[in-house]
Amino acid sequence: MAVRFVTGNEGKVREARAYLEGIDRVEQIEYDYTEIQSDSLEEIARVGAREAFEETGNDDPVLVGDTGLFVDALAGFPGPYSAYVEDTVGVERLWRLVEAEDDRRARFRTVLAFADGERTETFDGTLAGTIVAPRGDEGFGYDPIFEYNGQTLAEMSLEEKNAISHRGRALAAFAEWYADDEY
Amino acid sequence: MAVRFVTGNEGKVREARAYLEGIDRVEQIEYDYTEIQSDSLEEIARVGAREAFEETGNDDPVLVGDTGLFVDALAGFPGPYSAYVEDTVGVERLWRLVEAEDDRRARFRTVLAFADGERTETFDGTLAGTIVAPRGDEGFGYDPIFEYNGQTLAEMSLEEKNAISHRGRALAAFAEWYADDEY
Repeated sequence: MAVRFVTGNEGKVREARAYLEGIDRVEQIEYDYTEIQSDSLEEIARVGAREAFEETGNDDPVLVGDTGLFVDALAGFPGPYSAYVEDTVGVERLWRLVEAEDDRRARFRTVLAFADGERTETFDGTLAGTIVAPRGDEGFGYDPIFEYNGQTLAEMSLEEKNAISHRGRALAAFAEWYADDEY
Repeated sequence: MAVRFVTGNEGKVREARAYLEGIDRVEQIEYDYTEIQSDSLEEIARVGAREAFEETGNDDPVLVGDTGLFVDALAGFPGPYSAYVEDTVGVERLWRLVEAEDDRRARFRTVLAFADGERTETFDGTLAGTIVAPRGDEGFGYDPIFEYNGQTLAEMSLEEKNAISHRGRALAAFAEWYADDEY
């Protein structure tokens, strides 16, 4: 038995292995599941995980993740559409949009959905911070405009970022549940 | 035989009836089809129409529409996510985002997808205009910031707007094809 992580990103698989060390194996599979339009990362990940499990013809459970940046003053925008908004509006323009607001709080969220054909469970990791003018050259995406504890994510090393990241928190929540389970 | 328009909006059904008068009947059905995440209105409408046809257990063809506002300087944003962006970012903030750009051209697009179980066809209607500071009290959504021929859509009567609208153009394209067909 192994957990099959549905992702094109090997780095994410390595990170998941670190959290599941001594519990179970993690395999990478690439499968282009349907991402539905929804305000809810849980729903998007859940639907994707069910489809990936059903369509890949294998009894091993799957793990699907979805991540978004949620800006409080913008009612959660860009949320589930963060990748699309990065490609169109861009990080610099998102900063300008938030610059005009008094409340610049935001949250990075990752939801992992686990599906084994009988049940689908979701696990949530959140990192609360503030939107700021771009700083730093590390990381990717919205990292330069997301400040946590005085530093933007783009000013942190990969190790520093992984230690506090929303994805790490979701993986930790999943690993804790999975270790307690009968797998 | 009738065309089943999948929508919660009776006004849209009445408008479709006007275009299909003398060709076929138009019935309204409400069905909550899956909207996928995609840059392409065609793909979203196509997947929705297929699902609506398959899941509603009826031989009459279905029509599904999807509409978006595409701003050139923002690589098409908000595009397929226009309703979500209206609810979160809002129309006033979208105007401020575009105000900072030299190129304020935009297009309203409607795509209709027709599915009858054998084939799926799409029909496109486009209205090209310019994003401006909000003016006018008619209409809804992005109408106050979309200017066509010197007037915002929110400054036009419903009749004026229908006469030039992207939705009307898509309906006209569909009606022309449908009239020529063997239905």
